[in-house]
This record gives sequence, C-alpha cells and structure tokens, in this order.
Amino acid sequence: MNVNHILVAGNFKEEFKKKMPDQLRHEFRFLPVEKITGEDLDWADVYVGFQPAPDFDLSKINWVHSFNAGVNNYLELSGWSENQVLLTRTVCSFGQRISEYCLSYVLRDIQYHQEFHEKQRLKKWEKRTPKMIRDQTVVIYGTGDIGQEVAKTFDFFGATVYGISRSGSQKPYFKKVFDTAPSSILSRADWVISTLPLTPETDKMFNSSFFNQMNGSFINVGRGATVDEKALIKGLDKGNVQSAILDVLAEEPLPVNSSLWTREDVTITPHISAVTELDEAIQCFLETLRKVENDELLPNLVDVGKGY
Amino acid sequence: MNVNHILVAGNFKEEFKKKMPDQLRHEFRFLPVEKITGEDLDWADVYVGFQPAPDFDLSKINWVHSFNAGVNNYLELSGWSENQVLLTRTVCSFGQRISEYCLSYVLRDIQYHQEFHEKQRLKKWEKRTPKMIRDQTVVIYGTGDIGQEVAKTFDFFGATVYGISRSGSQKPYFKKVFDTAPSSILSRADWVISTLPLTPETDKMFNSSFFNQMNGSFINVGRGATVDEKALIKGLDKGNVQSAILDVLAEEPLPVNSSLWTREDVTITPHISAVTELDEAIQCFLETLRKVENDELLPNLVDVGKGY
Repeated sequence: MNVNHILVAGNFKEEFKKKMPDQLRHEFRFLPVEKITGEDLDWADVYVGFQPAPDFDLSKINWVHSFNAGVNNYLELSGWSENQVLLTRTVCSFGQRISEYCLSYVLRDIQYHQEFHEKQRLKKWEKRTPKMIRDQTVVIYGTGDIGQEVAKTFDFFGATVYGISRSGSQKPYFKKVFDTAPSSILSRADWVISTLPLTPETDKMFNSSFFNQMNGSFINVGRGATVDEKALIKGLDKGNVQSAILDVLAEEPLPVNSSLWTREDVTITPHISAVTELDEAIQCFLETLRKVENDELLPNLVDVGKGY
Repeated sequence: MNVNHILVAGNFKEEFKKKMPDQLRHEFRFLPVEKITGEDLDWADVYVGFQPAPDFDLSKINWVHSFNAGVNNYLELSGWSENQVLLTRTVCSFGQRISEYCLSYVLRDIQYHQEFHEKQRLKKWEKRTPKMIRDQTVVIYGTGDIGQEVAKTFDFFGATVYGISRSGSQKPYFKKVFDTAPSSILSRADWVISTLPLTPETDKMFNSSFFNQMNGSFINVGRGATVDEKALIKGLDKGNVQSAILDVLAEEPLPVNSSLWTREDVTITPHISAVTELDEAIQCFLETLRKVENDELLPNLVDVGKGY
C-alpha cells in the first residue's frame, strides 16, 4: 500500500518526532479527535488513534491503526468489509507486559507472599515450601499473539499449558489447544487466564456454568465484559473459584459500590496489565507502517469478521 | 566408583522406597544421625544426610552426599583432601526454586503489588504503568549452577544481567561476568542478588563499602553470614539500598529483637527459597549415585578447596 498522508488523532507531534527515523518522508496531521473533519479523512491514507473521530466514515480511508490492542470501539463502525479498510492494532509489547502481570500474581500466590508478610509482622519464623511453576496447570483463553506470549512464559518454567481458541488450531508453547475447554482440563487448572477480546461471542462467556467447572484461580487480562461478574462472585462464594485477579472489569472504573473491591479473594488492578504507553504505541505504528509499505505480513492485522 | 553400602542419616526408608527404581540393588542402613557409629561408617561406601554424624571420620568413607545445597557444616570436618573423599550436594531443582523466588519479589516490586493493594483497600482506580523486566539491570553474585539459572530466568525476559564470580570466567546468560563488580555496574543495578555460599572469603563480604555503591535493591538467597547486617541497615537508612529481600540471615531464626523484622523496606522469609524437599533431595541423590557409578561428570561436586 502507498501511504503518504498520516492523520493522527491527538497532538502527539513531539512524541512522533522522537521516534521517527529521518528517512520517513510522510505528511502528518495531528488533530484533537473531536476536531477531525471529513476533509481530513479524505486527505488521509491512514487514520491513527485511540478511538474513531466523531463522524468517522470508512469510505474515506484505506487503513485504520488503533493505538489500543482492543478494537471494539472501531468495530462498532459499519462499512469495514464494503470499503475493504485495513484495521491494525497495537500489540507490540503487550504480550510481554501481560505475561509479566500474570506471572507476578501466580508467583505471589505460590510463593506465599501474603502469608510470609503476615508472619513477618508477627516476627514468626515459620517455614513453608513455595510451590513451583512447573507443577502448575494453566489454561489460557485466546491463543493469538498475547495468549501465545503468556503460554511461552509459563512453558519456559515447565508449567502444563493448555489453550482454548475458536478454531482449536495447535499453536507453539501449548501442550494442546482445544476449541472448547474439556471439563476435565478446567477442573484440573490451577489458573485460568483470559486474554480474550470483547466480541458478540465472548460477551459474558465466563458465566455460572463456566465457573462451576473451575477449581483454581481466574485471571482476566482480556476484556471485562467477557465475565458475568455476578456469576464470578457466586463461584468465589461457593469455592469453585479460589481467587480472581481482575485487571479489566465490565464497568471501568469499577463502581465504588461493587463488592469486588472489598473481597480478600479478589485483586483489582486498574486496567494496567497492558496499558498503552504512547511511545510504544507509536513505535508499533511505525513498525506496522513499514510492513504495510513493504507488503509484509501483519501480525497485528484485525480480522473484522472475527472481531480480533 | 563402586557403591554397595549406603548409609542414610535419618529414618527415610519409606521415602527412599518410593523413589527407588527396582533395578537398584544396594544395601541401605537408615539411622538417626546421633546413633551412627564408627562401625556404620566403616561399613558404608557413601554417607547421605543433612549433617555429619557426631563422630564423623573422613578416613572411613569414600563419598559424602549432602542433602542440602550449603555444605559449610561438612566442610568444617578436616581430612577431605588427605582422604580424597568425594563431596556432593543437592542442587537439582534449587536453581529453579531460587529463580522463582527472586523473580517473584522483583515482579512484586515492578508490578506495584503493594501500591495496588492499598489502592484497592481505598477503592481507588488509579493507573500506574508497571515496569518491565527487560528494563531492569540485575547483578548476580555467584555464577555456578544456581546463579546461572537465575541469570537464565532474567535473561529470558530481556533483563541486562551481569555476573560476579571469583574467576570472572564468562558464562552463558550473563552479558558479562566480572571478578569484582565495577562501581559503575553496581550503581546502575536495579537488583543485586547474592547466591554465594559461606566461605572464609565471602564472610561479611557485603559490607558498608559495598552497600555504599548500591542504588537498587538487594536480594540474599545465598548465606546470611555473607552480609554485614549492620552495614545493610545503614545502607537502607541512607537510601543507598532501596529495599532488601532476605531469605537467609546471619542468625536463623532471625532473633525477635532484630530491627530487620519491622522495617517496611525489608522482606524476611524463613530460608525457604531453596528449602530441601526430601523427595527432591532423594531424587537428586539417586541421580548423583547413577552418575558416580557410571563415572559421569558431577555438576554438584563440591571443590573442598574452594568451599563450593
């Protein structure tokens, strides 16, 4: 694809300058998202931003690059296939960020951080042998870039890692990928990690019948609305779910009256496991730009039919 | 070496039975350590245990296998070289155990676990971007089996890992190994991790002049007596040492009156980073036995001159 005119939603001129190799000779427009007009879209070959401009028109553009990994806000626009618009998203370091987030909470648990902290407060020297990652069974929902990176991390330490994806195609680092989680696998999992995007199919897919099959802990680093939070709370109460680590929630910020805030078996973090660092997002866009211009494969291309 | 008679200090008969492949045809004696006599030592080809029997006599034995990784209790005996006694130790899963311990505390810090925990208590949704391991600089004292495994772990995530060893020989996973830490490297380190054994040379080697050069955090998973604890406290007070994670201490259990217990910048764990799990220790001994009988290389052989 030929890309000459780049329209950036947001005044990120200085940040782009820092990152841009001198040889790039494109024209840029940096505009606050609400000031973007149809004329700007007509001018642009690519639209880059965290969200679509108010009167976005997909017939006016060839390529949209999302500064986020999640693209549900863009997918709400209609006209993707009719206009054959390319949609790419920011994934570059997300996999590693999310892996480290997940690993940190798994290790907190199996290394008994909270227990030893309490023992220290009481000045008690009482041994307890940490568990090892290699003895953990991890089920990862989503086997795309991010899910694979999480799998790679746990596999490195010798954990038993299963994947669940719509296609069930086998992928590296997973012992086996299924299209639906067998109940025997779910009940054996010490950890279930969801990296799933929000699509009509994943909306509230983690429901009562899902949590009823669990015995371990649940980590959500995908999208909050994939979880039926009432069902999760019931699962925790019944003891099917040992604990939950939630970086994403159905409503963000999590409302003050949510009982999730105060549960000892729930950890809430404010959607930081793969926060978009602007510099990294820009870096990722420039890498994608280079690939688009050279007609290279795009690992961060969104299949608008599938929604990810 | 021909090994027929195995003397085990401790009544671990059942545990050995579980682990022993049927083809092993050795004679065993399982005895409480204080009941072991000169006659038992005369009978035995190998002595296996957590500590030497009271009247240990190295002239009566060919091989001693320590159920611990640390062997300073055995090295206090005299006659190792005169009698050419083989000394081996339990290292098998120690490297991974210690790596996971270190990683868990590094991740706790850079993922801001404590801060998010406090925010959750206050029901505050306030973002802060976690740091990534790849941006951390880690200096590891000791580049043997354990140090290398720790290096491999941090290297996997892209951290910059330096090693310090007596010889300064280059080893895999380290960007560079030095025989003494250059001040410029120490001051740049986000983490200094010691895996060092206790020897006359390492006794209190982490002293004031060492801590004065630091800017990051200190993790000790080696031996407690390698640290001058007063100097460490001064380092923490002055801000040269940001925090300390101590799994080993000069005196264990840590005395109740130690100020280390109550400092917010110190984490105390009761020597559990590489606790000997008996099953694993037995497994490790049996592997070592097989290697000894086949004259294979012994990665867990102790150089009694060096003390590790």
